[in-house]
Amino acid sequence: MAPSIAAADVNAPEHGQGLKSKGKVTDKVAPPADEMLVLNTIRCLAADLCQQFKGGHPGTVMGAAAIGVALWRYQMRYNPRNSEWFGRDRFILSAGHACLLQYLMLHFSGYPAWTLDEIKNYHAPTMKGIAAGHPEIEYPGIEVTTGPLGQGIANAVGMALAGKNAAAIYNKEGYPIIDGKIWCFTGDGCLQEGVGQEAISMAGHWGLDNLILIYDNNSITVDGSIANCFTDDTSAKLKATGWEVIDVYDGSNDLAAILAALDKAKQTKGKPTFVNIRTIIGISSRKANTGPAHGQALGDDEVAYVKTQLGFNPDAKFVIPSEVRQYFAETVPRGQKYEDEWNDLFQRYTEAYPEEAKDLKRRINGKLLDGWEELMPSKDKLPQEPTPTRKSSGIMVQALAPRDKSIIAGSADLLESTFVSWKGMTEFQKPGSGLGDYSGRQIRYGIREFAMVAAGNGIAGYQKGMFLPIMSTFFMFWLYAAPAARMSALQKLRFIGIATHDAIGIGEDGPTHQPIALASFYRSLPDINFIRPADAEEVMGAWKVALTEEDRPSLFALSRQPVPLLAGSNRDGVAKGGYIVYGDESEIPDVTLLATGAEVARAITVAAGLSSKNNLKTRVVSMPSFKHFDAQPISYRRSTIPSSKSLVVAIEAWATASWPRYAHAGCHMHTFGHSAPQQILYEHFGFGEDNLVKIIGQFVDRQKGELPAVGEFQELLLGFPESH
Amino acid sequence: MAPSIAAADVNAPEHGQGLKSKGKVTDKVAPPADEMLVLNTIRCLAADLCQQFKGGHPGTVMGAAAIGVALWRYQMRYNPRNSEWFGRDRFILSAGHACLLQYLMLHFSGYPAWTLDEIKNYHAPTMKGIAAGHPEIEYPGIEVTTGPLGQGIANAVGMALAGKNAAAIYNKEGYPIIDGKIWCFTGDGCLQEGVGQEAISMAGHWGLDNLILIYDNNSITVDGSIANCFTDDTSAKLKATGWEVIDVYDGSNDLAAILAALDKAKQTKGKPTFVNIRTIIGISSRKANTGPAHGQALGDDEVAYVKTQLGFNPDAKFVIPSEVRQYFAETVPRGQKYEDEWNDLFQRYTEAYPEEAKDLKRRINGKLLDGWEELMPSKDKLPQEPTPTRKSSGIMVQALAPRDKSIIAGSADLLESTFVSWKGMTEFQKPGSGLGDYSGRQIRYGIREFAMVAAGNGIAGYQKGMFLPIMSTFFMFWLYAAPAARMSALQKLRFIGIATHDAIGIGEDGPTHQPIALASFYRSLPDINFIRPADAEEVMGAWKVALTEEDRPSLFALSRQPVPLLAGSNRDGVAKGGYIVYGDESEIPDVTLLATGAEVARAITVAAGLSSKNNLKTRVVSMPSFKHFDAQPISYRRSTIPSSKSLVVAIEAWATASWPRYAHAGCHMHTFGHSAPQQILYEHFGFGEDNLVKIIGQFVDRQKGELPAVGEFQELLLGFPESH
Repeated sequence: MAPSIAAADVNAPEHGQGLKSKGKVTDKVAPPADEMLVLNTIRCLAADLCQQFKGGHPGTVMGAAAIGVALWRYQMRYNPRNSEWFGRDRFILSAGHACLLQYLMLHFSGYPAWTLDEIKNYHAPTMKGIAAGHPEIEYPGIEVTTGPLGQGIANAVGMALAGKNAAAIYNKEGYPIIDGKIWCFTGDGCLQEGVGQEAISMAGHWGLDNLILIYDNNSITVDGSIANCFTDDTSAKLKATGWEVIDVYDGSNDLAAILAALDKAKQTKGKPTFVNIRTIIGISSRKANTGPAHGQALGDDEVAYVKTQLGFNPDAKFVIPSEVRQYFAETVPRGQKYEDEWNDLFQRYTEAYPEEAKDLKRRINGKLLDGWEELMPSKDKLPQEPTPTRKSSGIMVQALAPRDKSIIAGSADLLESTFVSWKGMTEFQKPGSGLGDYSGRQIRYGIREFAMVAAGNGIAGYQKGMFLPIMSTFFMFWLYAAPAARMSALQKLRFIGIATHDAIGIGEDGPTHQPIALASFYRSLPDINFIRPADAEEVMGAWKVALTEEDRPSLFALSRQPVPLLAGSNRDGVAKGGYIVYGDESEIPDVTLLATGAEVARAITVAAGLSSKNNLKTRVVSMPSFKHFDAQPISYRRSTIPSSKSLVVAIEAWATASWPRYAHAGCHMHTFGHSAPQQILYEHFGFGEDNLVKIIGQFVDRQKGELPAVGEFQELLLGFPESH
Repeated sequence: MAPSIAAADVNAPEHGQGLKSKGKVTDKVAPPADEMLVLNTIRCLAADLCQQFKGGHPGTVMGAAAIGVALWRYQMRYNPRNSEWFGRDRFILSAGHACLLQYLMLHFSGYPAWTLDEIKNYHAPTMKGIAAGHPEIEYPGIEVTTGPLGQGIANAVGMALAGKNAAAIYNKEGYPIIDGKIWCFTGDGCLQEGVGQEAISMAGHWGLDNLILIYDNNSITVDGSIANCFTDDTSAKLKATGWEVIDVYDGSNDLAAILAALDKAKQTKGKPTFVNIRTIIGISSRKANTGPAHGQALGDDEVAYVKTQLGFNPDAKFVIPSEVRQYFAETVPRGQKYEDEWNDLFQRYTEAYPEEAKDLKRRINGKLLDGWEELMPSKDKLPQEPTPTRKSSGIMVQALAPRDKSIIAGSADLLESTFVSWKGMTEFQKPGSGLGDYSGRQIRYGIREFAMVAAGNGIAGYQKGMFLPIMSTFFMFWLYAAPAARMSALQKLRFIGIATHDAIGIGEDGPTHQPIALASFYRSLPDINFIRPADAEEVMGAWKVALTEEDRPSLFALSRQPVPLLAGSNRDGVAKGGYIVYGDESEIPDVTLLATGAEVARAITVAAGLSSKNNLKTRVVSMPSFKHFDAQPISYRRSTIPSSKSLVVAIEAWATASWPRYAHAGCHMHTFGHSAPQQILYEHFGFGEDNLVKIIGQFVDRQKGELPAVGEFQELLLGFPESH
C-alpha cells in the first residue's frame, strides 16, 4: 500500500481567508507513512459512509481528518471506557454537520458504543442508532448537541467558564483536580453567526485560557466559496478581541504543524487561543474546494476515484487497515491511566480537604444543596405590599446563591432590573482585573442575550446538575435568546430563566420592548417550563418547580410593575399549572375567569365587579403553567375550569393562541403595544377593570346561558380600541 | 451668558475602549461660543425633558449632543419640510434609547411635526404624541423603528445596499440622482449584539462606502462601565472587517474634530467608515460616566447642578436661547435648496432617460411592475408531478425577479435549497470583485440569518415599496431571524420570507433542524402573514397574497419533500385562509380534517381511508393562513369548518397551540424530532396514514356522535410513540 496525495490537493484554497493571512501553505510535508495511512483511511471511510445512503457531509471529514487525529490520538485527555469521567477534557463540535469526523474518532479511540456498525447507521433509513445527523448529547463522548450554527462556540465558552469557576473554588495547592481543557471545533459558518461573535467577545474579556477554538478554515460553505460573502480577517479580529492566535497553513496534511500549534495553545496563559487551520474540504476528491463537497455524498465514481488516489481498493468499502488500529491502540490504556491518576489525586484531595471534596462530590452527582425548601419564606413572610414579581423572584436568588456554589447567576446588562444579584457576590472576572475573579458566580454577560443562554447550556452541560445557571434579561429579549433556550429544552439542560418586564407593563419603552406573541413560542416548546406567576407566593411556587424538576429548563415571565399579594394564591398551585385563586370551590360559577401573571389581580377585581354589578357567581383560576395544568388528571382540570357548565373567559395581555383550548372567550392583545405608562396602556388596550366588567357582562348577557362550542371562540377586545 | 464646561468633564473615560486605542483625549478645545451654547442648551433640555416625568435616557443626549449638531447642522442632506424627499440622506439611530437626541435635532432643524410641545410628551402619561420611548418609523424624520439593540446597524447596512443598488441601476453619467449617505448612530450595546457584528461583516464584504457608522463610545451601559463585560478593541475589529476607521477623542466637546472625521468619512471610497467617537455620558453632571446617567432621570438637584455648571438659570426649564435658534436658521432653506436642486436634476434625467425615470418613479411610488398576476402559471401549467413546495415557490422568483428591479432576493447560504435564485441573475457584490456588481439583485447574506432579515428591513425601509426583499433560509433558522421579522411586522415593512424544510420533513438533519414550536410564534405575531401552502397551486396563492398586501411581511413555510398537486387545491383559497380541498361541500361530513402544508395530501388520503374503511362522510379543509381565515365572515368560517355539526380533527406535524380554536381533536408533535429520513419520521411520530385512519376512526367511535366541548380537546398522538 502506497498512499499518496494528489498533487492538486496540497495547494492552498485560492480564495477567502487563506489568502488574507500571512504565510503560505507549506510545501507538502511528508508525515510518517502510518499517519498518512490513518488520514487516508478516514477519508475513504467518510466517502463510503456518506455514499451508502447518499447523504451526509463528507468534505469536512476528509479535509479535517488530521485535526481529528491530532485531538483524539495526541492532545485530548479522556477515557474512552468512561466517557463521563469528570476529569476529562471536553470537546464541542460547533460545526455539528461534521459529526461523522467525531464519530470516527470516537470509534478509533475505543469508545465501546461507537462500533463501525453503529456509524454505518449515519443517514440510514432507521430510527435506531446513535450516529445522528448532528451530534446528540445523550450518546457517549458527545458533550453537547450542536447543529444550529454558532451556538457551539458559546457552549464551549460556557464550559470553559464552568471549568475555571470550579477550579477556582475547589483546586488547592498541589491538587489541580479541575484542569481540563475545552476544545471547540468550528467552521466558517459558526464564525459568521452573531452568536459566535458574541461568545468570542465574552471569552476574550474573561481571558479563558482553558479554551481552545480550532477553526477548520476550509473557506467553503453550502453555497460555495466564502469569498462570496465573508472576507473578514478572522485572525486579526480574534486578536483584537483578546485571543491568542496561532496559524496552521496545511491542516489537511501537516499533522506535525497541528500538533505544535495545539501544544502551544495548551501553554497559553491568560487568554483563550484561536488556532486557524487551513484545510481543503473534500481533499483527495475532484470536488475538493467546492460547495458540493460540503453537504452531498460524492457519488460512486468519485468515491472510487478518491480510493484510487489514496492507494485503496476502489471496490472495497469501509476498509480499516490493521496499522490504523495499531496507531490508536494506546488510547484505551492511556485513558484508563489518566482516570486512575485522577482518582488517586482526588482520593488524596478528599483526605486533605474533606469539606471541599464532599461539596464537589455532591455537585458532580448533580445535586443541589439540601435544604433549599426551608430557604423559601412562607407566605406570611413575603412582602405584603404590592411588589413586582421580578423583585419577589430576587428573594430566592439572595437566599440560594450565597449558600450553594452550584448557582451561577447573571444578566445581559440588566442586573439591577432582573434581581439576580445578591449581597456579598463576587463577579466572575479575569483575575487581576480588579473587578472580581474566577471564583465569582455573578456573571456579566454583556448585551449578548443569545450567547448568554447558549453559554448557559455549556455551563449546565459541563457536568449535568453541577451548575444551575440563572440567566436574565427583559422577556422581549428572550426572543434573541430563543434559539439557545430551545437547545436547552432539546438537551434537557436545566437553567432558570428570568424574563422580566414581561408585557405592556414595561410601559414607556414602547412596542419594541413589549412582548405580544413570544409566550406562544415558549408555551409550545417541548420540555421547558414556561411559568408566569401572579404574585410573590406564586413566584415561590415557580422556584419550587424549577428547583425540583432537574431535567428541564424553566423560564419565569415576571412583571416590571408591582402586583398585590393575593389572598387566594398558593405556591403549590403552580405545580398543578392552574388552580382556583378566587371564588367558592364548592359551587359552579356563572363565569370562570382565567388569567396569568399581573393580570390575575386584575381578574379578581373584575370577578368581584361581575358579582356585585351583574349578580354573577364568579371564579378566577390562575394559570401560571399550561404544561403542568395539562398534565393533571382530567377530574382536576374539569373541576378547576368547569367549561362544560360555566362561561370561561381568559384575560391576558398577550396575543397567545393557547386560550381557546380552555376558554369560550378571551380578552387579549391583537396589535403591537405602544409607548406610554403601563396603567394607561392597560386602559387603552381594553384591560381597564371597569371595561372588562362591562364587556364580560355583555358577553354573559348575549350568551343567555348558552356555552359557545368549539369554533366559536369570542375575542372580546378585538378591534377595541383602534389598533396602534 | 458664559457657558463653561466643568473641568472634570473633559477628561477621558478612564476605562474601556478609551484606553485601548491610540491617542489621547485632546486638551479641551474651545469651540466658538455659540456652538458651546448650542451643546449646553441641548444638555439642559435633555436633563429637563427626562426629569419632568422622571424617566428616559438623558446621559447619551448630553454626551453626544455634538454628534447630533455635526450631523443635522452640518453634514446630513435632508429637507425638514419634506421628510420623505427621496434624495435625502438617511439617519438610523441604532441606539434607539437615545431618541431624545434625535427628537431635539429634528426640532432644531425645523421639522414642523417636532415642536417642543411634542417633545415634552417624551415619557408623558399619555397615549398621544410622537415622542415615543424609542423612535418610530411612522413619524417624520424617523427612517426606521429601533430599540432592540444591534438591529439598527443591520437596518443601515440594508439601506446602504438599497442605495448602492438603485444608484447602480439608475444613475447615469452626469446624473447622480441617487447618492445619499446612510448615517447610523450606535452605542456600545449594538456592537456587543451578534446581529450588529453580522451586519458589520456584511457591509465590509460589500464595501459599502455610502455607509457611515458613528460609534458614540461612552463606554457606559445600564449596568455601568463596559470594562465589566466588553474589552474588544472595536476599531481594530472593524479594520479587520474591511472598514475604514477614524478616531475622535473628545466627542462631547470637539465639534471641529467630529466634523473633520465625518468629512473624511464622506470621502472614503470602496469601504464603509466607522467613526469611533469617545464621549462622556451625562457630561456636565456629577453622574457623568456612570450607569445611572444612561437610563434614569438625573434628579431635581442634579438638573439644577448641570444648569448652574453650564451657566443656565437653574430655575428655568426648557430654555432655548435665541442664538441657538439662529444657529440652526439655515437648515430649512438649505434643505429646500437641496430638494430643488435634486428636483431639477431629476427633471433633466427624466428628459434624458425617460424609460429609467419612469421605472424609478414607479418604484418611488411603491408600486410593483404591473402584470405580475399574468406571470403566475395557471394550475394546469404547474408541475403535475409531486414537487416540493419550496421548488414551486421558485417558479415565482424566476418569473418576477428578472423583470421587476424591485426584487432583491437572497439567502443565508442556502440559495440552492430555497430556490430564490434565477437564471441570468447578477450577484450584488463589490465592483471589481469579479463576483458581481452593485446592480446585482441576488444577495448572498452569508450564514447570518438575523442580520439578513434586519438588513431586509433597511432595504424595505429605504423608500417604502421601492424594494421587495425576498429572504430565505430553513424554517428553523427563522428563529434566529425572528427578532428582525417581528420588527418588520411592527413597522409594516413588506418582505417575502421563504422558510423551507419546514418540519420533520427535513429528515436526517435531526431534531436540531426540525421546527416544532416556531409556527406558534409566527401565528401569534400581529401584522405578518404566516402561510403554509399545501401544494404548488397554494404556493401561487401565497405569492398572490404577499404581492397584494403591501403593508405587511409574509412568511411561507415550505416543504423539503415533494407533495402532489391536489385535485381540489385552489390558489384563491389561500386569501380566505382555509377552504374545502376535499369532500362534498353540500353535505355535512361526519369528520372534518384540518391540515396545512405537506400534511394536507396526507389528510386527504386519511379522509379517503375513513370513508372506505369506516364508512364516514369526510371533508378536508386546507388551512394555509389562520389570520386570513379568522378575517372571513362567520358564515364562511362555520360552513367551511362545521364544528357544531361534525367532528373536527387537525393534522399537523407541529406542536402549535392554535388548533383547539377550530378542532375537537388533533394529531400533532409533542416532542422534539429525530434524525431519520422523513418517511420514517412521519410513521414514527404517528402520522402514518394507516395509523391516522385507525386513531381517528377510534376517536369517532368513542364519541358516539357527541362533539367534545371547549376544554375537552383530545390529543390523539399524545405519548405515541414514546418520546424521543
